[in-house]
Amino acid sequence: MHRCQPPDAVVWPQNVEQVSQLAALCYGHGVPIIPFGTGTGVEGGVCAVQGGVCINLTHMDRILELNPDDFSVVVEPGVTRKALNAHLRDSGLWFPVDPGADASLCGMVATGASGTNAVHYGTMRDNVLNLEVVLPDGRLLHTAGPGRYFRKSAAGYNLTGLFVGSEGTLGLITAATLRLHPAPEAMVAATCAFPSIQAAVDSTVHILQAAVPVARIEFLDDVMMDACNRYSKLNCRVAPTLFLEFHGSEQALAEQVQRTEEITQHNGASHFSWAKNAEERSRLWAARHNAWYAALSLRPGSKGYSTDVCVPISRLPEILVQTKEDLKASGLTGTITGHVGDGNFHCILLVDPEDPEELLRVKAFAEQLGRRALALHGTCTGEHGIGLGKRQLLQEEVGAVGMETMRQLKAMLDPRGLMNPGKVL
Amino acid sequence: MHRCQPPDAVVWPQNVEQVSQLAALCYGHGVPIIPFGTGTGVEGGVCAVQGGVCINLTHMDRILELNPDDFSVVVEPGVTRKALNAHLRDSGLWFPVDPGADASLCGMVATGASGTNAVHYGTMRDNVLNLEVVLPDGRLLHTAGPGRYFRKSAAGYNLTGLFVGSEGTLGLITAATLRLHPAPEAMVAATCAFPSIQAAVDSTVHILQAAVPVARIEFLDDVMMDACNRYSKLNCRVAPTLFLEFHGSEQALAEQVQRTEEITQHNGASHFSWAKNAEERSRLWAARHNAWYAALSLRPGSKGYSTDVCVPISRLPEILVQTKEDLKASGLTGTITGHVGDGNFHCILLVDPEDPEELLRVKAFAEQLGRRALALHGTCTGEHGIGLGKRQLLQEEVGAVGMETMRQLKAMLDPRGLMNPGKVL
Repeated sequence: MHRCQPPDAVVWPQNVEQVSQLAALCYGHGVPIIPFGTGTGVEGGVCAVQGGVCINLTHMDRILELNPDDFSVVVEPGVTRKALNAHLRDSGLWFPVDPGADASLCGMVATGASGTNAVHYGTMRDNVLNLEVVLPDGRLLHTAGPGRYFRKSAAGYNLTGLFVGSEGTLGLITAATLRLHPAPEAMVAATCAFPSIQAAVDSTVHILQAAVPVARIEFLDDVMMDACNRYSKLNCRVAPTLFLEFHGSEQALAEQVQRTEEITQHNGASHFSWAKNAEERSRLWAARHNAWYAALSLRPGSKGYSTDVCVPISRLPEILVQTKEDLKASGLTGTITGHVGDGNFHCILLVDPEDPEELLRVKAFAEQLGRRALALHGTCTGEHGIGLGKRQLLQEEVGAVGMETMRQLKAMLDPRGLMNPGKVL
Repeated sequence: MHRCQPPDAVVWPQNVEQVSQLAALCYGHGVPIIPFGTGTGVEGGVCAVQGGVCINLTHMDRILELNPDDFSVVVEPGVTRKALNAHLRDSGLWFPVDPGADASLCGMVATGASGTNAVHYGTMRDNVLNLEVVLPDGRLLHTAGPGRYFRKSAAGYNLTGLFVGSEGTLGLITAATLRLHPAPEAMVAATCAFPSIQAAVDSTVHILQAAVPVARIEFLDDVMMDACNRYSKLNCRVAPTLFLEFHGSEQALAEQVQRTEEITQHNGASHFSWAKNAEERSRLWAARHNAWYAALSLRPGSKGYSTDVCVPISRLPEILVQTKEDLKASGLTGTITGHVGDGNFHCILLVDPEDPEELLRVKAFAEQLGRRALALHGTCTGEHGIGLGKRQLLQEEVGAVGMETMRQLKAMLDPRGLMNPGKVL
């Protein structure tokens, strides 16, 4: 959706001092600064709409400090989530936030990323303890104070929270202190087909109300399920489906699965099947993670665009049913998958990139969906961010005083408007 | 520690429009504004150090909207945590954040409160979905947008997070949308005595590493335990002690308790006893919640002052041991209790309010403890806030650039410096 807009120059700093010098230099000369991690964001966050210097942070890729007894780690911006988890393998800990891509962790901080584990482990907002930030003028800010990694604090304004989700518009994140979690002792996955979207969502609400500590609960509509069956050689029923995962001790898992099965059956589910061994489980979740490619394969040669609204869970059935009707009416091809425990879902739309009329229809559909979510007390973006394309929707979402306050924040930290210009606001 | 400094006037607005008019009026006339909930904060947050108008929000005490399927509720600022939980009793939901006092929920937002359940359910920072805020000039801000109560979002800057913990210095919170949790199906409490502080903390780390989903894990030093025995007629061994609570299904609880018992025994614990029936459990936790009064009873006629540092968990043993030595050296009487799963602990110091020399010794002790925590990568306040007395420590904690950024934020939202002046910064 967002065409590549290259910067005038790309630099690869090796350390925070260089980042600081680069920022000060650019800022002094009025040159836009675009921070870059893996570039896997989907809302055009790294497009250089006004040119300028792209500061590529991938050469800073050290894991600086691991404190296993304190469940914390400090990473440089080039470290990706998979690299961190590989490093943690023998520590008994892991970092659970998992957007689709193997994104850089500081990029995930910048976009406020989440993924399939958020229902249990929270999003990036919940898992950042401290940030080292180079401000636009080159000054170095430690949002929770230099070298600090406590688990909670009531000391002053929450600067850490201000930079999580700021999409590179307030400063460059040069190190993040993240909260780690104990690696699950055992895991079980399950799939479950439903007669309707309502039944799948009702099951989700009931599972959460019953305090079953589900680690993942993902929704796939019939079209998405069909595509995953074909692409990943699964044999699931083509119907509204939940993919679930449970983390815990063997004994706890058995009880969680049993309770979930009871709840889903009560809501009319059929075909509850669970994957206990690692291979089966991996196959199932690989299929879920490959949903994007499965969707693309429905229409070879197409490009995908993913919507990202999030609503209160109880409003999911109506917006999902409406969305499927809108899809039909629009003549577009699309699948639906979502983090149903958070009320967040994606409609993956398949577009012929050479067809400008179809691109317009996709844009119109995505905007309509964003407004539907806003009308249901929701947000236009659960985890992808505002980037370039959702700035109008953001205004409608937060209202005039909210926008004024955000603009004041931007002007305060970036008075010359040079940090990743054209994004968010 | 903070002497009462009364305002020039107190007003009791009945609704948000009146709050907005009052704020605009005061701001226009250069009169300081002090928001007031239950006044149960312990860092002097409601002292009117420059006089002005105290806006008492307790008459706005309605629960405006409960959405059980979405795990959310909207409360006015006069609603206390106990009133909310009484209201929720038949809903199957509860709000778990529990500072000692029956504080107002919006006051808890303002101070970034937490309590004994934070290790499992998070602090206020993790449980606020949206805030209605009257800005100093009277404008009305909805931090996540008007009427929104989604579970997650990546839309723009995190304004909600900015106001949680702002201690009334950025605006008046006139409504909060809170995240609710399923009420536990069953609960078990346990107590456990240890040969040393190190053994109690090691057990805590091992319990968390084993992913036992402990709901509460509280530390009491020998002096505190002794005081609780006397005051609450308990019969626990006088030793470093953990109070624990587990929430879940009967079956899950049995396993959690068994694992915990194994871990604590491995660390040399004796006297592991668990309270399964509601009465025993309540008696135990009532004793914990009355720890403050138990401490005061050690020295009749004294007043208490509670320190509030928080460090990485692994650093707890050394700071606890040092603190006990400092206590002895200072000649002060004090007990120690803490939310050990978060690394946060309180030293309750008993002071003769008529003895200015002793008050100075308490201040010096508290400051030394704050600096010890800072030296161990910690914070000077885990949950009580900065208020009047910790402004110097905040500067040492966040550093020059952090302070500049906080001051810019204050100047941005409160350019005339009239919102709860003299606090935080």
